[in-house]
Amino acid sequence: MREGRLPLVHEDRLFPADPSARAVARRLYAHVKDLPIVSPHGHTDPRWYAGNEPFPDPARLFVVPDHYIFRMLYSQGVRLEDLGIATKDGTEVETDGRRIWRRFAERYHLFRGTPTRTWLDHAFATLFDFDVRLSAETADLYYDRIAERLAEPAYRPRALFERFNIEVIATTESPLDPLVHHKAIRDSGWKGRVITAYRPDPVVDPEFDGFKANVEALGELTGCDVSTFAGYLEAHRKRRAFFKEMGATSTDHGHPSARTADLSPVEAEALYTRIMHSNVTSEDAELFRAQMLTEMAAMSLEDGLVMQIHPGSMRNHNAGLFARFGRDMGADIPAATDYVHALKPLLDRFGNERELTIILFTLDETAYSRELAPLAGHYPCLKLGPAWWFFDSPEGMRRYRELVTETAGFYNTVGFNDDTRAFPSIPARHDVARRVDCAFLAELVVTHRLDEDEAHELAHDLAYRLAKEAYKL
Amino acid sequence: MREGRLPLVHEDRLFPADPSARAVARRLYAHVKDLPIVSPHGHTDPRWYAGNEPFPDPARLFVVPDHYIFRMLYSQGVRLEDLGIATKDGTEVETDGRRIWRRFAERYHLFRGTPTRTWLDHAFATLFDFDVRLSAETADLYYDRIAERLAEPAYRPRALFERFNIEVIATTESPLDPLVHHKAIRDSGWKGRVITAYRPDPVVDPEFDGFKANVEALGELTGCDVSTFAGYLEAHRKRRAFFKEMGATSTDHGHPSARTADLSPVEAEALYTRIMHSNVTSEDAELFRAQMLTEMAAMSLEDGLVMQIHPGSMRNHNAGLFARFGRDMGADIPAATDYVHALKPLLDRFGNERELTIILFTLDETAYSRELAPLAGHYPCLKLGPAWWFFDSPEGMRRYRELVTETAGFYNTVGFNDDTRAFPSIPARHDVARRVDCAFLAELVVTHRLDEDEAHELAHDLAYRLAKEAYKL
Amino acid sequence: MREGRLPLVHEDRLFPADPSARAVARRLYAHVKDLPIVSPHGHTDPRWYAGNEPFPDPARLFVVPDHYIFRMLYSQGVRLEDLGIATKDGTEVETDGRRIWRRFAERYHLFRGTPTRTWLDHAFATLFDFDVRLSAETADLYYDRIAERLAEPAYRPRALFERFNIEVIATTESPLDPLVHHKAIRDSGWKGRVITAYRPDPVVDPEFDGFKANVEALGELTGCDVSTFAGYLEAHRKRRAFFKEMGATSTDHGHPSARTADLSPVEAEALYTRIMHSNVTSEDAELFRAQMLTEMAAMSLEDGLVMQIHPGSMRNHNAGLFARFGRDMGADIPAATDYVHALKPLLDRFGNERELTIILFTLDETAYSRELAPLAGHYPCLKLGPAWWFFDSPEGMRRYRELVTETAGFYNTVGFNDDTRAFPSIPARHDVARRVDCAFLAELVVTHRLDEDEAHELAHDLAYRLAKEAYKL
Repeated sequence: MREGRLPLVHEDRLFPADPSARAVARRLYAHVKDLPIVSPHGHTDPRWYAGNEPFPDPARLFVVPDHYIFRMLYSQGVRLEDLGIATKDGTEVETDGRRIWRRFAERYHLFRGTPTRTWLDHAFATLFDFDVRLSAETADLYYDRIAERLAEPAYRPRALFERFNIEVIATTESPLDPLVHHKAIRDSGWKGRVITAYRPDPVVDPEFDGFKANVEALGELTGCDVSTFAGYLEAHRKRRAFFKEMGATSTDHGHPSARTADLSPVEAEALYTRIMHSNVTSEDAELFRAQMLTEMAAMSLEDGLVMQIHPGSMRNHNAGLFARFGRDMGADIPAATDYVHALKPLLDRFGNERELTIILFTLDETAYSRELAPLAGHYPCLKLGPAWWFFDSPEGMRRYRELVTETAGFYNTVGFNDDTRAFPSIPARHDVARRVDCAFLAELVVTHRLDEDEAHELAHDLAYRLAKEAYKL
Repeated sequence: MREGRLPLVHEDRLFPADPSARAVARRLYAHVKDLPIVSPHGHTDPRWYAGNEPFPDPARLFVVPDHYIFRMLYSQGVRLEDLGIATKDGTEVETDGRRIWRRFAERYHLFRGTPTRTWLDHAFATLFDFDVRLSAETADLYYDRIAERLAEPAYRPRALFERFNIEVIATTESPLDPLVHHKAIRDSGWKGRVITAYRPDPVVDPEFDGFKANVEALGELTGCDVSTFAGYLEAHRKRRAFFKEMGATSTDHGHPSARTADLSPVEAEALYTRIMHSNVTSEDAELFRAQMLTEMAAMSLEDGLVMQIHPGSMRNHNAGLFARFGRDMGADIPAATDYVHALKPLLDRFGNERELTIILFTLDETAYSRELAPLAGHYPCLKLGPAWWFFDSPEGMRRYRELVTETAGFYNTVGFNDDTRAFPSIPARHDVARRVDCAFLAELVVTHRLDEDEAHELAHDLAYRLAKEAYKL
Repeated sequence: MREGRLPLVHEDRLFPADPSARAVARRLYAHVKDLPIVSPHGHTDPRWYAGNEPFPDPARLFVVPDHYIFRMLYSQGVRLEDLGIATKDGTEVETDGRRIWRRFAERYHLFRGTPTRTWLDHAFATLFDFDVRLSAETADLYYDRIAERLAEPAYRPRALFERFNIEVIATTESPLDPLVHHKAIRDSGWKGRVITAYRPDPVVDPEFDGFKANVEALGELTGCDVSTFAGYLEAHRKRRAFFKEMGATSTDHGHPSARTADLSPVEAEALYTRIMHSNVTSEDAELFRAQMLTEMAAMSLEDGLVMQIHPGSMRNHNAGLFARFGRDMGADIPAATDYVHALKPLLDRFGNERELTIILFTLDETAYSRELAPLAGHYPCLKLGPAWWFFDSPEGMRRYRELVTETAGFYNTVGFNDDTRAFPSIPARHDVARRVDCAFLAELVVTHRLDEDEAHELAHDLAYRLAKEAYKL
């Protein structure tokens, strides 16, 4: 048995095992591997690019903020307190970065076969020059070298942004966000292109924490009278315009379902009044979110912002953990998601608009071939977003292509999103997507379903062009 | 990068990349590739075989009638009017075949990776001898050569039927259809075997356009008193007998769900009265369709017609397009489909009948391994139809075999259906099915799950024998 | 075409066709193929090990008790009476083992491509030294040799148990079972480890045949007052303790859905009273089963028994067959199964308990990537059981790994269960699981997602260690 001292990233990783297919995949990949990164949807922190401060220690870069990492450790019995996750009531948690890092390193085998392992190894090898696996034995070697490097200027956010060859990256902000970091980036003279996206859940979802106060704040920010539905919609319009000024080309909507509605103005006004002036029923909350997707589509048709819909996650499934630690603790669990009935009211009104772009995502793979590909393969306004979240992984990406392509083709899809909060994962994630797409195209070539010249054009489209065009970047 | 001038169809297409598996697949395919085509379910126009007139221009052969083609162009912003699709109100649309063809040719890349591309290339290469891809540049070359050939006697419907080596083909007609074309074919002395199938949706589905008038017409055609449920059922019996005389061996039922019911005669009569004499509720409509599946099974047990059930499509999803252009505009979208509860009333009554054959189809792949294979692997009356519609494609066919075989075996399936309106696609579709099945069998052989002599027998069964036997052809 | 006289089991069966991946799979498998069998969940008959009587004739060993075999024959028109399946009313059925065997042998081709074929060939080759396929021609050759061998001491249950290298096997018993066979095994001095598991469906499911009488019997067995819910729960506690004494390390729950509930004591007592003293509504039955899952979790936290949940089967779907032959006739059909909402009440109470182990199974593959892997990849108390029932097959096992691993990792899974009633299938089933896992790991190695030293460790974990640890064996 070998020793574990192997290159952490192999040049042929994720390519097909069959030599003929691997050869085609290599040729395709060679032409796309160095393309700039277009990242039209994600959750990196604009403060990083604005302040350009060094990242803190290795644990606080890799472990503490990443719920993909700590959920796995938690599932195997590690307490979140021992990983330095802050509690809502301020009770004490681990503060020693090295001890957190060691707990993680000792359990690195838990990540075998996961996308987290793939991107971490990529970052360890390419950013920090490791060629030995992370483990209990190598924990301190890792910690020391990463800590040392993070203090160097070349590891500050803007330097990494440039090293990663990022052409443009979008962050995601609430309408209530003043976008001061985005303004600071612009005013700094730095050339990196960091744009925002309009994510109105806090002022659109009546079940969001502090919803009514959020709506009031939106009214104040915009000077609109949010006591009426018309005024509330006007506030959205103004705020969208401000986001557009700050670079936004898209909006994003994270609803529990894909339900849409198309109420009459009178019905909509009455619903808004109920929502704002009484205890909200879950049916009214769902109906209001549904109506607001249609309203947002109407505004997108006016102002040209591309609309992203991310439905189907049951957020904060773990009640005890939510009470103690809050949101984003790795306990958002997907549920079965219908699109064919849910989207009909919106599509009845705007489905045939050629100037509107709605990008649909799913966490429910069963919808790919059954509903999403047929819908996107017909309606001019619809496109399919890439494999999302738990499917943002080689097997998930492969299934996405296999389940979607035959019905929707490649050109009703929009390239790749990294959708990440983990800055050092960005190059790895785009690299994985490019490799998996090249592998898929290579299979089509060697089974004679596609000519190789077409596969080259497609590899470029999937890695670069489609994202730019769909998101108007 | 290569030039695009490659054979459009490669002799090894769709075979596994691995050389050992490919070698087995080639051997299996060699024995089945020239078998006659048995096409027990489809939608070609009997008028073609009756009249034997030349097909019109290339656009009207390939683009205008095929919603698989124009839905993809529509999804990418091409107006249906510009593709020559007739409007309901008669407002003007494009009439120039060459301009329609050019719009299609310029966008041929949209079909990369789709089954449409596969069969079109097959038809272009084998019927029209092209060895250069369709594109903006080759649009006129294609148009001229196809137009020229279509004028030749060898390209008339009957000549193509014989060239395609079709042993028997079924079309699908409403009970109200007088079957004059089928009669003309018989009377013509031509030896081609074209049979009908009984598709009673227009007189069984209370939500079908013109349902009540259709039922009245059925009464007149058969001389039955359709004012009672008993008389209505008798009209079906008579009409089924007429279809049987005209060659039919099967019926076909395209319902929104797989729901069945087994009402008492009193309840059924009362339901029929409500359906015929008041505004139909959607629940009554669903219940009537459900009851009629069970009634049709009872008749099949009497007259021996094989029963096909095609459930789970939400028809005419695009309201605006339906209003302007009518049915079959590429906007039929699948929905999640339950079988295990839905079929129980029918199965409780007829499930153990060994003389009854019910062939189940699905557009919801999730039902294959969960419900359909277990049901077909147990009930004597049930068989599984092949991958349908959006899964009528290499990946979809492969998933069908992978998801169905281990539980239902091969012998509870019924071979291939092309289910097509596109006459020139028939040889390509059967060829794809034969290749994908040979590839699947080859994988079983090289992983030592099946001996090669058994695979040869199975390849023949899947390509030819099972369809003939299941459909009593 | 070859003659059919081939080794029935090939040394490379189920390994990838690609030579590089196959080489890795062979190396991995070489290290795990001879590991002892740990079988923590199944349905073999403890009477076999207690009495150690010879198995009866070939038909009664292989065909008559195995509903996987006779359901397939039944689906193709063979009457169950002709296969010797006993009727409930005692009407006559076939009693001649050889005639039953011949009916099976003549139709052995029906099993092509199924897991039944795989394990039967394995048993025929390794236990009975056949190198020719079963068929009409070889039926008597098979029958005679198997019958002869079954009379030998080496083919008695304990000798086979030792030959199979079984380290421990669990059976499954009702709380009402006196466990006399388990006691006899212990008292016999034989070293084979056969343990029970607590399967309380007959006293937990109000829709189970004879439920109320079963509860009364539970009260008598334990001396508890089952007229109150508290007394009923105490009876479970006592009976679980008895099962634990007899070796049990787990409980098992076979509910129609995964629904759980967490009622207040007052509500639970009232529900119990309704259940025991009136006609049970289906909603009350479902709610009671739901509440009992949570109660059983509470008891598992006290007594340490591992909890297994097997939801989602619609039992006895074929009403006519159930009336004539009873349960387990091959007509249990899976249905769509929700976990994300259904498990929340239980998880809200116990989800974060690190000392509790709940193993989840599914017959609905759509839940793997969407719900089960995310849940098991987060909650400390949850683990995923292996591919179950109709997925207990090479393709099903492969899909399980592909759909689960990226999100839950390997270490939130629990190794393999054979779940079988068919004693001679045990070595074959574990061998298939080991081969499929080695094949999956080999794919990860050759696509450079895992190093080979890690794959060796994982192969051992999946074949042996994880089952022992998860089930506390």
